[in-house]
Amino acid sequence: MITVLRLGHRKNRDKRVTTHCGLVARALGASAFILSGDDDRSVIRSLEKVRRKWGGDFKIEYDANWSAFINNWKKNGGLVVHLTMYGIQLGRSLKELINFDGDMLVVIGAEKVPGSVYRLANYNIAISNQPHSEVAALAIFLDRLFGGKELENTFNNAMISIIPQEKGKRVQFNSYERFNQSVKPYHK
Amino acid sequence: MITVLRLGHRKNRDKRVTTHCGLVARALGASAFILSGDDDRSVIRSLEKVRRKWGGDFKIEYDANWSAFINNWKKNGGLVVHLTMYGIQLGRSLKELINFDGDMLVVIGAEKVPGSVYRLANYNIAISNQPHSEVAALAIFLDRLFGGKELENTFNNAMISIIPQEKGKRVQFNSYERFNQSVKPYHK
Repeated sequence: MITVLRLGHRKNRDKRVTTHCGLVARALGASAFILSGDDDRSVIRSLEKVRRKWGGDFKIEYDANWSAFINNWKKNGGLVVHLTMYGIQLGRSLKELINFDGDMLVVIGAEKVPGSVYRLANYNIAISNQPHSEVAALAIFLDRLFGGKELENTFNNAMISIIPQEKGKRVQFNSYERFNQSVKPYHK
Repeated sequence: MITVLRLGHRKNRDKRVTTHCGLVARALGASAFILSGDDDRSVIRSLEKVRRKWGGDFKIEYDANWSAFINNWKKNGGLVVHLTMYGIQLGRSLKELINFDGDMLVVIGAEKVPGSVYRLANYNIAISNQPHSEVAALAIFLDRLFGGKELENTFNNAMISIIPQEKGKRVQFNSYERFNQSVKPYHK
């Protein structure tokens, strides 16, 4: 089971990037997303809305005290992987991580990550040592960890799902009634 | 050579997500990034600043007329790959794409992508059929296309670069003078 912890969220700047982090976590096989930094209900609501519509049991929570959260995680035998451009290249540790047989916490920061995170983490892992995006780092990390199988994940209780097309869009309404009652129609 | 075309950028909403797309394109081996939608100089300046500091020859341009751009690309023998959650799973076409021996345009949209993009594209490819992030889709696509080798890309004329660490940060100033003159110090 993989949980993603998003550190240092700032309401004003990070709303969409943090939402993307949560969506990537859900779509690519993590079980939970913990938001830290600003307590931003709009991010949590967006993610809950996606879960309601697209299914699955993805857990979304806010926790102000990330440091206690990480310490607890380790106390319970969990592994902590911090994704950072300053870390060691993924390839060096990937096998160990794939073979790890417990709960993994994947920590991703916003602009500035406190030094203690580097010390608390069992692994500081770089998805390239170039500046890019925590959304991208998380995506590649999960893709490598699950060996690509996560791209075909299906989600229980989905109201709608996609039927892949070579051209255009095709959506299947699995539960149109329930869908109509709870969210706006996807296609106008 | 791979060029990334970002469609439908909106100044107010997409500034950071679009910047992340550009950074991912550069870091993971694309040669150029074309911004379309709003003509947002601040995104272009951010990307240019990263290139100046971290090196390489990544090209960044604005083009209002994405449809002419795509048509021209095809006229010149280039391939157009549109990343969309509605498309066919990557695995189905990956080999063909890896073996393609010409210039590839990777198109990523913002919220709403015009139907004509689906028709113009040679491939509409889904990086999972779940909603997540164009940043993530682009990252996984490039990672699969380059087979992971792109994570060790180095960039010429970099002012600074990272020396990977198991704990903490270590930055190498390759050209401190030039660096000091042009950008703020990275560490305070």
